[in-house]
Amino acid sequence: MTMLCNDPAKFTDDMLVGFLDANARYVVGVPGGVVRAHKTRPGKVAVVIGGGSGHYPAFCGTVGPGFADGAVVGNIFTSPSAEEAASVARAAHSDAGVLLTTGNYAGDVMNFGLAVDQLRSEGIDAHYFAVTDDVASAPRGEEAKRRGIAGDFTVFKCASAAAEEGLDLAGVVRVAEAANAATRTLGVAFDGCTLPGADHPLFTVPKAQMGVGLGIHGEPGVAEEPMPTAAELAATLVDGVLGDRPDAAERRIAVILNGLGRTKYEELFVLWGAVSRLLRERGYTIVEPEVGELVTSLDMAGCSLTVMWLDDELERYWTAPADTPAYRKGASAIAAPAGEVRSAQDLQTTSEAADLAEQADDDGRSGGRVVVRALTAMAAMLAEAEEELGRIDAVAGDGDHGRGMVKGSAAAQQAAGGAAEAGAGQGSVLAAAGKAWAAKAGGTSGVLWGALLTAFGSRLGDTGTPDLATVAAGLRDGYNALIELGGAAPGDKTMLDALLPFVEEMERRAAAGDSWIEAWRAAADVAADAARATADMRPKVGRARPLAERSVGTPDAGATSLAMCVRTVADCFTSVKQGEN
Amino acid sequence: MTMLCNDPAKFTDDMLVGFLDANARYVVGVPGGVVRAHKTRPGKVAVVIGGGSGHYPAFCGTVGPGFADGAVVGNIFTSPSAEEAASVARAAHSDAGVLLTTGNYAGDVMNFGLAVDQLRSEGIDAHYFAVTDDVASAPRGEEAKRRGIAGDFTVFKCASAAAEEGLDLAGVVRVAEAANAATRTLGVAFDGCTLPGADHPLFTVPKAQMGVGLGIHGEPGVAEEPMPTAAELAATLVDGVLGDRPDAAERRIAVILNGLGRTKYEELFVLWGAVSRLLRERGYTIVEPEVGELVTSLDMAGCSLTVMWLDDELERYWTAPADTPAYRKGASAIAAPAGEVRSAQDLQTTSEAADLAEQADDDGRSGGRVVVRALTAMAAMLAEAEEELGRIDAVAGDGDHGRGMVKGSAAAQQAAGGAAEAGAGQGSVLAAAGKAWAAKAGGTSGVLWGALLTAFGSRLGDTGTPDLATVAAGLRDGYNALIELGGAAPGDKTMLDALLPFVEEMERRAAAGDSWIEAWRAAADVAADAARATADMRPKVGRARPLAERSVGTPDAGATSLAMCVRTVADCFTSVKQGEN
Repeated sequence: MTMLCNDPAKFTDDMLVGFLDANARYVVGVPGGVVRAHKTRPGKVAVVIGGGSGHYPAFCGTVGPGFADGAVVGNIFTSPSAEEAASVARAAHSDAGVLLTTGNYAGDVMNFGLAVDQLRSEGIDAHYFAVTDDVASAPRGEEAKRRGIAGDFTVFKCASAAAEEGLDLAGVVRVAEAANAATRTLGVAFDGCTLPGADHPLFTVPKAQMGVGLGIHGEPGVAEEPMPTAAELAATLVDGVLGDRPDAAERRIAVILNGLGRTKYEELFVLWGAVSRLLRERGYTIVEPEVGELVTSLDMAGCSLTVMWLDDELERYWTAPADTPAYRKGASAIAAPAGEVRSAQDLQTTSEAADLAEQADDDGRSGGRVVVRALTAMAAMLAEAEEELGRIDAVAGDGDHGRGMVKGSAAAQQAAGGAAEAGAGQGSVLAAAGKAWAAKAGGTSGVLWGALLTAFGSRLGDTGTPDLATVAAGLRDGYNALIELGGAAPGDKTMLDALLPFVEEMERRAAAGDSWIEAWRAAADVAADAARATADMRPKVGRARPLAERSVGTPDAGATSLAMCVRTVADCFTSVKQGEN
Repeated sequence: MTMLCNDPAKFTDDMLVGFLDANARYVVGVPGGVVRAHKTRPGKVAVVIGGGSGHYPAFCGTVGPGFADGAVVGNIFTSPSAEEAASVARAAHSDAGVLLTTGNYAGDVMNFGLAVDQLRSEGIDAHYFAVTDDVASAPRGEEAKRRGIAGDFTVFKCASAAAEEGLDLAGVVRVAEAANAATRTLGVAFDGCTLPGADHPLFTVPKAQMGVGLGIHGEPGVAEEPMPTAAELAATLVDGVLGDRPDAAERRIAVILNGLGRTKYEELFVLWGAVSRLLRERGYTIVEPEVGELVTSLDMAGCSLTVMWLDDELERYWTAPADTPAYRKGASAIAAPAGEVRSAQDLQTTSEAADLAEQADDDGRSGGRVVVRALTAMAAMLAEAEEELGRIDAVAGDGDHGRGMVKGSAAAQQAAGGAAEAGAGQGSVLAAAGKAWAAKAGGTSGVLWGALLTAFGSRLGDTGTPDLATVAAGLRDGYNALIELGGAAPGDKTMLDALLPFVEEMERRAAAGDSWIEAWRAAADVAADAARATADMRPKVGRARPLAERSVGTPDAGATSLAMCVRTVADCFTSVKQGEN
């Protein structure tokens, strides 16, 4: 919801003060709105856009060279008055007339129409045009009744570029009409927005539902559907827009995937991947697409797809440069160096297969195969435990620990298998496994497990069968490597709180002269107890206070997965031993 | 919450596909992230930025000339692996070494540090630097322990500009260190964010509270406070950042007011108006501020203030041009015309006092005074009724009807008073009132009331005392003017549904030869009944379906206020009459 304001009644005034201050290079305030900081040149038609505010960067964010000469700024979602529209138009006007244009809403049509009458009565050649791109707001054949939504942007952009190019008012109006006739938009909403100072949303969309064609102020749509996947939504938007294709439409299209405010860039890019694929499959060439927030509705959740079918003239205007507070395009002052353009192919770095044909004796090679069996058992166990570990991690973390462990252990198993097949000893097999784990798992647990296995392996070496003392020393090396990497200490509720007791028990058992399988099994029990005990700890780092509280009573996911892994390895050793007997 | 995705496990991969497709002019994908579409020129240090994703435009959105050479893209809020960081660095590297830089987080420090070791082992001159701008994450004296948040942007920008300028790796590292030492950020959060595919937010902030210093992944902050006004928040942020001012700080500062995702541009501009005022009061000169979304956290609600104290070198790098998918600065290809820069002063349009010294006789002037008394009574009544009308309107609208009526009627009363004092007759007084109402109220109701009063006045004229037939005809003219303006018809649950019965009753009474005061009172009763009856109607236009449903059972706000106004006028006439007796 909209949370930051002072007096809600003054929200728009306060917003304009800040906008003008931050963008003084581009714009200056006038009664009723803003105009370019530089006067419109003689002979150039002035283009004045506008409507209610709450849609930034529409409309004042696109005032500047190549785009609008002025923007009329009404209160949130409220048409400005005719006097305000006329005031901005007077300030923006040079000597060649002025086009006033808005989306097609009753209040705007009335007020801007009256402003045109007023301007003409003052001898200013003025014309008004309303954008009607929203296919959901009226059926085919009644295009004139449609609302203007994100298609405002393509129409305003082309009309402004035409004015910049020097067309007269009649010519600019013709371009606006042509751009509007070639533009179609379908929008969807997942949740409403809240007006400044309001306690309740202006409108709502039922949870897990999507309003198809719902207007940017909550006006009626065409359907309510269950919340789709990004791929399903891409099909809905593409079918909806292309299904309303104007006659004799071209194959080259300008495309806008517009976010309404709370649907963020990452989501829009996920959606765009599917939308652009579908459009190309239909045989379209996409010209300079825009993926981002261009016509918003405060913090409304949703998005819209706009397509403008391009003839040569519209493509020239769509691709023309612009330089405004929120939208800039065209070659910038800092040109890309002459250096040739690269293709993704040049760049596939050859994944370095570490040299595993190292010196190893038969004992070392059989040790390497034991490591592979242990890692295989771990990977299988973790694949089963992914959900459980995710649930534990979600209590105080982002719930991705299970996934990270699965990705890391699977990669480690694969790399270890390759190394063993290449005849590597236990040390090199563990090194290969550690490198693969860190590379594929990502995150903190990935680098920790990678370092643990690598340090362990370098102590074991590739020759002979390590005795318990060597195994314990290798595990201590692994623990030390984690401490060196920093980020946590024992008691911070991390995997260290299970690893350290495990290592210490191994060291005790080594001193006592136990067999290393018995030692490992006993140490695994200690690790399991220690992991459970982390339930009483509070994390020291990287968690918001409320989450730290919540985490008390739940064991640490990293400590838990470590205990599960050493337990699995102990069982694996046992079966190996039994297999040998 | 984050709603759009396919397989949450593939969210980042899917996002990269869409990002690369939409920005092919700037970037190309490589294993682990993205690099510039044009190869880094020989002799130029490569700057590789990164960390987990979910912060767009950080980090891949700022790869391009003048900014980064490459970005490593981890999973959402998760450090990329050392192998991924090394892979992107290899692809971005030309022949002059590479700076890898991230915010200061354990996972990034580990993985990028290991990547530097790997790159050096391959003969690539590599260096790692971690940004520590978050004043809330560690006290003074422990700056090195601080997290990196929006200050990543100032540090990455300056280091990249230094590399673009041709500094060697040691020089670029020195600039990064200097920018980091001069940068301070304080962030606040109002609500958490939700990871793709997750059912619950990653963390939460108690309702109506604000987490001060809460990290962009929910890490602990310094305090929890009641949600402030924009002005109060401005003071909190400015005091918090300036209070940690580095020693020997300059008076020229680069400033970023950064939105985290759900706190929108309009709110940021409201906040910026107060922030910039406070900074100037403290004697600072603000150099090219950035107000917008630069380092986000999915759809987290909140913002942060970053200040970088500038010496000549840092100012040169801060203001240097850049051309990237999400951030562009510097003179663009389309220069502003030579035309002089305007000042806001040039532009104060002289508010046209309409010529009211028109022909009017004594009857007409006394009629004008009656109109003023009627409008004065209406304005007083509406000021009292503002809240009630707002409540009614809020059921199916945005709750601003009361405010619009108060603004319009107050302006109308004032303009009418001025016209009457100037000796205007009833017609010109009503015309002045109508124009002022439309100009000041804005929205649809403003233009409708303006048109109604204006049409009514032009029928009454400025001479003589109009008889009932003329009054009725004038009201019918007003009704017709509203119909011509379009946007609604009787039955659409608008003010027309009270106005039409009122007009018809006046016409009936005129035909019956009643006195016009009796007629007006009777018609006011009819209008009140008609307004109440709108409770059974559903709005035809401009409302979301759920709101349309909700509105049934509640009368229309416009019809209600019209009925209240004509009732007030009837009472006023009565008192006038009594005054005359």
